[in-house]
Amino acid sequence: MEKIRVVEVGPRDGFQNICDFIPTEVKLEAIHKLTAAGVRDIMVTSFVSPKAIAQMRDAREVAETCVKRWPHVRCSALVPNLRGALNAMEAGLRELTVVISVSASHNQANIHQTHAQSYENLERILKECPQAAVTVDLATTFGCPFEGYIRLDQVRDMVRTLYGMGIRSFDLCDTIGAAHPGQVKEYVEAMLREFPEADFGVHIHDTRNMGMVNTLTAIQCGITTVQAAAGGLGGCPFAPGASGNTSSEDMIYMLNAMGYDTGIQFDKMLEAALYIHAHVNGNYSGHQINVKQ
Amino acid sequence: MEKIRVVEVGPRDGFQNICDFIPTEVKLEAIHKLTAAGVRDIMVTSFVSPKAIAQMRDAREVAETCVKRWPHVRCSALVPNLRGALNAMEAGLRELTVVISVSASHNQANIHQTHAQSYENLERILKECPQAAVTVDLATTFGCPFEGYIRLDQVRDMVRTLYGMGIRSFDLCDTIGAAHPGQVKEYVEAMLREFPEADFGVHIHDTRNMGMVNTLTAIQCGITTVQAAAGGLGGCPFAPGASGNTSSEDMIYMLNAMGYDTGIQFDKMLEAALYIHAHVNGNYSGHQINVKQ
Repeated sequence: MEKIRVVEVGPRDGFQNICDFIPTEVKLEAIHKLTAAGVRDIMVTSFVSPKAIAQMRDAREVAETCVKRWPHVRCSALVPNLRGALNAMEAGLRELTVVISVSASHNQANIHQTHAQSYENLERILKECPQAAVTVDLATTFGCPFEGYIRLDQVRDMVRTLYGMGIRSFDLCDTIGAAHPGQVKEYVEAMLREFPEADFGVHIHDTRNMGMVNTLTAIQCGITTVQAAAGGLGGCPFAPGASGNTSSEDMIYMLNAMGYDTGIQFDKMLEAALYIHAHVNGNYSGHQINVKQ
Repeated sequence: MEKIRVVEVGPRDGFQNICDFIPTEVKLEAIHKLTAAGVRDIMVTSFVSPKAIAQMRDAREVAETCVKRWPHVRCSALVPNLRGALNAMEAGLRELTVVISVSASHNQANIHQTHAQSYENLERILKECPQAAVTVDLATTFGCPFEGYIRLDQVRDMVRTLYGMGIRSFDLCDTIGAAHPGQVKEYVEAMLREFPEADFGVHIHDTRNMGMVNTLTAIQCGITTVQAAAGGLGGCPFAPGASGNTSSEDMIYMLNAMGYDTGIQFDKMLEAALYIHAHVNGNYSGHQINVKQ
């Protein structure tokens, strides 16, 4: 049985798109239920400015609690800059994710940076947080809401630059759900072939109903790390038309049924998704929480 | 570019699950918009008893109009018995679909027949309608709401029996959306290998978010006929928990993007789905009509 590492990003990518503040204890109870299902990789929060995303104003408390309460779980957080990275490290996290969009216009819209500024920002984080394991999420790898199709050579160039800076962990992100299985196959195979020393994961949105098929295609090409969000929550506040992430419970149901080893129990994962569905008012693209309701 | 025949089943499988009667002119306008998108295979109605499914009480008018108005389109109908078959033939149709469930208990719940009765029923239709091209839809091929998992040898035995009766066209139907890509691959490859003279299509429901990935898997195994319903409408009145069909417009978007030749224009297909969405009150699992709304 091939092991697949399913990284739960609901508490970050799902919750950050919810307008009403989710009480910290609800966030933690959701994370508790995820860990009880066997999830061992969770992006628990974002260390962003509370002015930019008020939902994440309890990032420190969430991260500190997670690190203490679930030491066997790999907890990570998104950090937009050095300050966020330092705060995440102070909260006890050692896995940080930095987002850079392959599309220059989306990078500007999303984090108000040119590519050069993003590289500089990343350099600072790498220098000041030497104990951190830094992953770069390559937003808009497959398509951009402003520029459309993103070419493979644009992705390759950015990976090469980041590789030169020492980054060995990447997620190929379909931020707006623009990819199709043929493109996923092409891009994933190229990355695995050209950067054999790096780790690649995928982060796929389900906008055009291809979340499951694109993620499975990536796995069939050799990817073993996939991101998903309980309930299929998510989106991107700066990507018009993007809908939720691939639903974790639907993904886990499929992978378990196919004989992959996710280490996650579907029934308990569904419980976690149903808990979130009952306590967090948002858009859910996961099918099975809707069927069961 | 490999040709894929996308058979639109929304006017049958989608509409039959709608409680409120859909005016005949709305049904015909929906079919018109589907043909305008390039759809050339449509299951236009069901010749069932109006007492069983009142929605289909205008079957004759719908079928007659379709045959006259769109002679370049292959129109088919579901027929449960000889009477339905004769009515369909009188209305001018020449493509008939008979449903038999691989699961005996679902066959009983769905059409109140044992397998022996279903075979007898089919014999009568074949004898009395020699000009008809008869396809058998094998309901619950991959799983049954009452019996659970359906074994490959159960499917194989039924196909062999039907093959012996002269049937050369089959649809492997995932009536409740229970299949996963591994099972689809196993079953499809076995059928294509063991019955090379027969035509096989797939009809997949999206209950567990695997409609797209299961259908694409079937295509990658050599299937070239796939069923789908505009908007992802559908279900099965006698299959608890079943949700809609795979959405035609999502499917066509994916197949066109991957370079398959469906002959169908996505934008116009989406228009057809949006028309149905606006005029027919039901559950839609298609993502792109929801995004665009």
